[in-house]
Amino acid sequence: MSFNSFGRLLRFTSWGESHGPAIGCVIDGCPPGLELAEPWVQHFLDARRPGTSRNVSPRQEPDRVRILSGVYEGRTTGTPIAMMIDNVDARSADYADLPPRPGHADATYDAKYGLRDPRGGGRASARETAMRVAGGSVARLVIPEVEIAARVLEIGGETDQGRWDALLDEARAGQDSLGAIIECVATGVPAGWGAPIYAKLDADLAAACMGINAVKGVEIGEGFAAGRARGRESMDAKLTSGIDGGISTGQPVVLRAAFKPTSSIGIGGRHDPCVGIRGAPVVEAMIALVLADHKLLHRGQCG
Amino acid sequence: MSFNSFGRLLRFTSWGESHGPAIGCVIDGCPPGLELAEPWVQHFLDARRPGTSRNVSPRQEPDRVRILSGVYEGRTTGTPIAMMIDNVDARSADYADLPPRPGHADATYDAKYGLRDPRGGGRASARETAMRVAGGSVARLVIPEVEIAARVLEIGGETDQGRWDALLDEARAGQDSLGAIIECVATGVPAGWGAPIYAKLDADLAAACMGINAVKGVEIGEGFAAGRARGRESMDAKLTSGIDGGISTGQPVVLRAAFKPTSSIGIGGRHDPCVGIRGAPVVEAMIALVLADHKLLHRGQCG
Amino acid sequence: MSFNSFGRLLRFTSWGESHGPAIGCVIDGCPPGLELAEPWVQHFLDARRPGTSRNVSPRQEPDRVRILSGVYEGRTTGTPIAMMIDNVDARSADYADLPPRPGHADATYDAKYGLRDPRGGGRASARETAMRVAGGSVARLVIPEVEIAARVLEIGGETDQGRWDALLDEARAGQDSLGAIIECVATGVPAGWGAPIYAKLDADLAAACMGINAVKGVEIGEGFAAGRARGRESMDAKLTSGIDGGISTGQPVVLRAAFKPTSSIGIGGRHDPCVGIRGAPVVEAMIALVLADHKLLHRGQCG
Amino acid sequence: MSFNSFGRLLRFTSWGESHGPAIGCVIDGCPPGLELAEPWVQHFLDARRPGTSRNVSPRQEPDRVRILSGVYEGRTTGTPIAMMIDNVDARSADYADLPPRPGHADATYDAKYGLRDPRGGGRASARETAMRVAGGSVARLVIPEVEIAARVLEIGGETDQGRWDALLDEARAGQDSLGAIIECVATGVPAGWGAPIYAKLDADLAAACMGINAVKGVEIGEGFAAGRARGRESMDAKLTSGIDGGISTGQPVVLRAAFKPTSSIGIGGRHDPCVGIRGAPVVEAMIALVLADHKLLHRGQCG
Repeated sequence: MSFNSFGRLLRFTSWGESHGPAIGCVIDGCPPGLELAEPWVQHFLDARRPGTSRNVSPRQEPDRVRILSGVYEGRTTGTPIAMMIDNVDARSADYADLPPRPGHADATYDAKYGLRDPRGGGRASARETAMRVAGGSVARLVIPEVEIAARVLEIGGETDQGRWDALLDEARAGQDSLGAIIECVATGVPAGWGAPIYAKLDADLAAACMGINAVKGVEIGEGFAAGRARGRESMDAKLTSGIDGGISTGQPVVLRAAFKPTSSIGIGGRHDPCVGIRGAPVVEAMIALVLADHKLLHRGQCG
Repeated sequence: MSFNSFGRLLRFTSWGESHGPAIGCVIDGCPPGLELAEPWVQHFLDARRPGTSRNVSPRQEPDRVRILSGVYEGRTTGTPIAMMIDNVDARSADYADLPPRPGHADATYDAKYGLRDPRGGGRASARETAMRVAGGSVARLVIPEVEIAARVLEIGGETDQGRWDALLDEARAGQDSLGAIIECVATGVPAGWGAPIYAKLDADLAAACMGINAVKGVEIGEGFAAGRARGRESMDAKLTSGIDGGISTGQPVVLRAAFKPTSSIGIGGRHDPCVGIRGAPVVEAMIALVLADHKLLHRGQCG
Repeated sequence: MSFNSFGRLLRFTSWGESHGPAIGCVIDGCPPGLELAEPWVQHFLDARRPGTSRNVSPRQEPDRVRILSGVYEGRTTGTPIAMMIDNVDARSADYADLPPRPGHADATYDAKYGLRDPRGGGRASARETAMRVAGGSVARLVIPEVEIAARVLEIGGETDQGRWDALLDEARAGQDSLGAIIECVATGVPAGWGAPIYAKLDADLAAACMGINAVKGVEIGEGFAAGRARGRESMDAKLTSGIDGGISTGQPVVLRAAFKPTSSIGIGGRHDPCVGIRGAPVVEAMIALVLADHKLLHRGQCG
Repeated sequence: MSFNSFGRLLRFTSWGESHGPAIGCVIDGCPPGLELAEPWVQHFLDARRPGTSRNVSPRQEPDRVRILSGVYEGRTTGTPIAMMIDNVDARSADYADLPPRPGHADATYDAKYGLRDPRGGGRASARETAMRVAGGSVARLVIPEVEIAARVLEIGGETDQGRWDALLDEARAGQDSLGAIIECVATGVPAGWGAPIYAKLDADLAAACMGINAVKGVEIGEGFAAGRARGRESMDAKLTSGIDGGISTGQPVVLRAAFKPTSSIGIGGRHDPCVGIRGAPVVEAMIALVLADHKLLHRGQCG
């Protein structure tokens, strides 16, 4: 039922637990003839990798991706693209014999499936997002006309970037963690992608971002400010939203996602003081997947 | 491609333009044996009907729904339920010869489909939401254990309900309009509905609400406040979100949607000064559709 | 769950019981700008209508179709196309108080849904095929390059057309009924439609035809003869199949469907001595829907 | 777009080329708590493995399957089950520099995707069916009440099993090949699985089998014989079909598939004189996948 798939014409399916032998994904429906090689995917994976700065979890995962199908002589063939990353640094001992942790999905997994993998979050781990980033790197090839860039807008409610390092140090010292707001802008999206009612571009973007771990809110363009606005002011502001009636306008598509603070605090495992920082490349990837899908859908229906 | 469908196992498809002869929907996958008759659906339609107070558009649409299939002797049969409402008050003359209006989807329709129906927004009309409300009324039958209630939380940024009438009068007099924030709470959702990765309950709820006309932001539980929060405080707050790792926890599910101000101001047509007010029953309907779908999905996968 | 939908990018959903107030369908994903008016659809409906010859059931159904949405000024708009036919000749009294009839779906409906509509087969009626024919007429507009023609190949095992009238008269007199084999050829299908594994063009065609009432076998190209053949002879024969590896070759696509004899014999209702005769336009319609869908899919993925 | 996926609630996706580094699959939607370990899957893979008798291709593929996710302590967890087989015996040199072979999908791949992988059929290889067999072995766990058994019914038109060895020897000596007809019977399917219109159990079974390489015809129950029959005789015969109106009756489900002769004859590669012999376990697997899917769908909709 596509519980673990995403997209309509460009279809992305991921698999793998954070502490199993490997994680992977399959991208189905990718157009043929696109240049694709492992270094391209690796480049995006490296950008999200934990252990690259003091502000993200010190796990040392090489995240070395392998492309197992769908590419021949450096180009996509139109058949499914399978990618895989071996889990080489899965010290599950850190997590053994833990009770369900508040804020982790362990308890809900248990409620749903009647059992749980105690080694750290199972599927609902930030690790699964590596495959989203891999998938997003392929999606970018489908939409070379679009540029997608996400950045941290706020950390712990602080918009002054100069204050962030201090806040993070403080949180780390106090075994606390911080929320973050990520903004993503996609430029170059031509007018006409999307659909008016249930395959709305903004609805798909909202689902894509709300489906990222720790995201608790999504807004498009003027967002919640519009919910507090009056007409005339909104008329001006809305020019920046990039989507109207579910369909792209040709202007930049602007989206913001709110990441809640990390919930695993003060246990033996290795976690980020602010998962939102690592969220930016994941947001980019999801937006790339949605836009690539809608490009193909639009081409299919409207030629 | 389900451009105009919604849901997975309980599948809702709507059709019809605001100023065509009729609008309708088909609900596929509804379990058999549920008591369903037209007055039940009509009850929810009447609650959203324009013309019922001075604060919503004075169009007099009877919105008389007919059930055309899928029900026999007062009970659902398991076959598709088709419902239809004739458009009896479609004064399209009001809209004739208008250029694309800023903030209406006319321009994006034109970009996508190469033509547009100038009679007032085509599919992207608040009128289409009548069928969502009809669909939601059927979805409620699937989840009798759940109670869903939406209410206006803010109008034009004002949280004091006592000030709303004055604000609306002022907006009407000034041919202006106001944004609104709607909060919806679903109680009685058992633990275990949803799925961990892409069929997350929160992601589906976000898409459902972002797909409503004029909605520009959606948040679950603590929402954007969590994006500005630090760990410990969030730990407490999150107890009210009702969803963890994409799966319901058994606690009330809380969601907020931001409606932008009406964009059609100062033209001849008849519009609401605050569409968000009429948004509450639509939000309820969409949430009912998502929850009913996830109940069936959960039963299918996990027995 | 698309229990009652068909297709991927061009999505067809039907609703309605044979003896309810109306039957209808929704076609979602139809490209915009195609010329469409009711007489075009009616033309195909009339070709399948019962009561037009002595060899098909004498029910007098006008089958007058109405297009309710998705068309503006004679052209498709890209939004869902809803069509409806009122049931004006539903003499359900003929069927009242009947026990489940052998070979009718009544018993399986009962097993599945725990209830049944005793008025004659509910959804599983030849009447539902009217909407397939309506849907197929729209699909033809999507693929003007393709010509689709089905014809009766055998009746009751008799391939000599000159013997058919006598066989049918005999069956009618003896309250018996006859099987039929329909052959359908689609010419003009360009090379490249379809997909290699699960969205194979031949697999989709097989499902489309096996989903028609009374069809019990489907074969593509050389079909079952190939299952009884040896290599070299097959090499020659296969040149006529039109599909290789799930993808069209550019040659005519040839398909045959086996219709079992009518199962309702000797009861008060009005039925055909050979439903297969009426099956030809339904086979054409289903093939048109599949081919149109695959054209859009191919355009979406491969530009 | 599910070009390479199959199923609705139990969703099977395969990937991999016959001569790439590996092939694999993902099974999404599998219920939690089922006992699953690699030997179970391996057992079914071994049954279809080439090189196990003189009548199937002498390739020595160990087909050693690995389960990479979705199983914890010997039980399914409800998350996606990924399986993979390394391709250790891919002597693609045998196939290098070959022109498109008649009857191979190479030419249609080229037409569709504008390029082709000359190393032997790409996706459209019998090798891909290994993953179907792996997937089918998981599906069997979902439907322990059902027994599925396929057997060869005819080889080269010969129904007398005693003549088959001679026929095969003769074909091998003459570098010729033979068609086959496989019959599969599923017993224990309870009444009520399936759906009346487009998710018909028989339509899904037909698509599943027609999607197997080399299959050119599929029939359910009395099949093409019904297309040549008259009423009364059919009434008796139909009691064995097991499906009525798209829904299972509780009786055994009987299906036959026609495999055309192998098309790659007299080239350097290693091929079977009769691929149909190896088709039986693949037919079983596809039927298991369809039945398991419909069991979950039925449980979802009808409790």
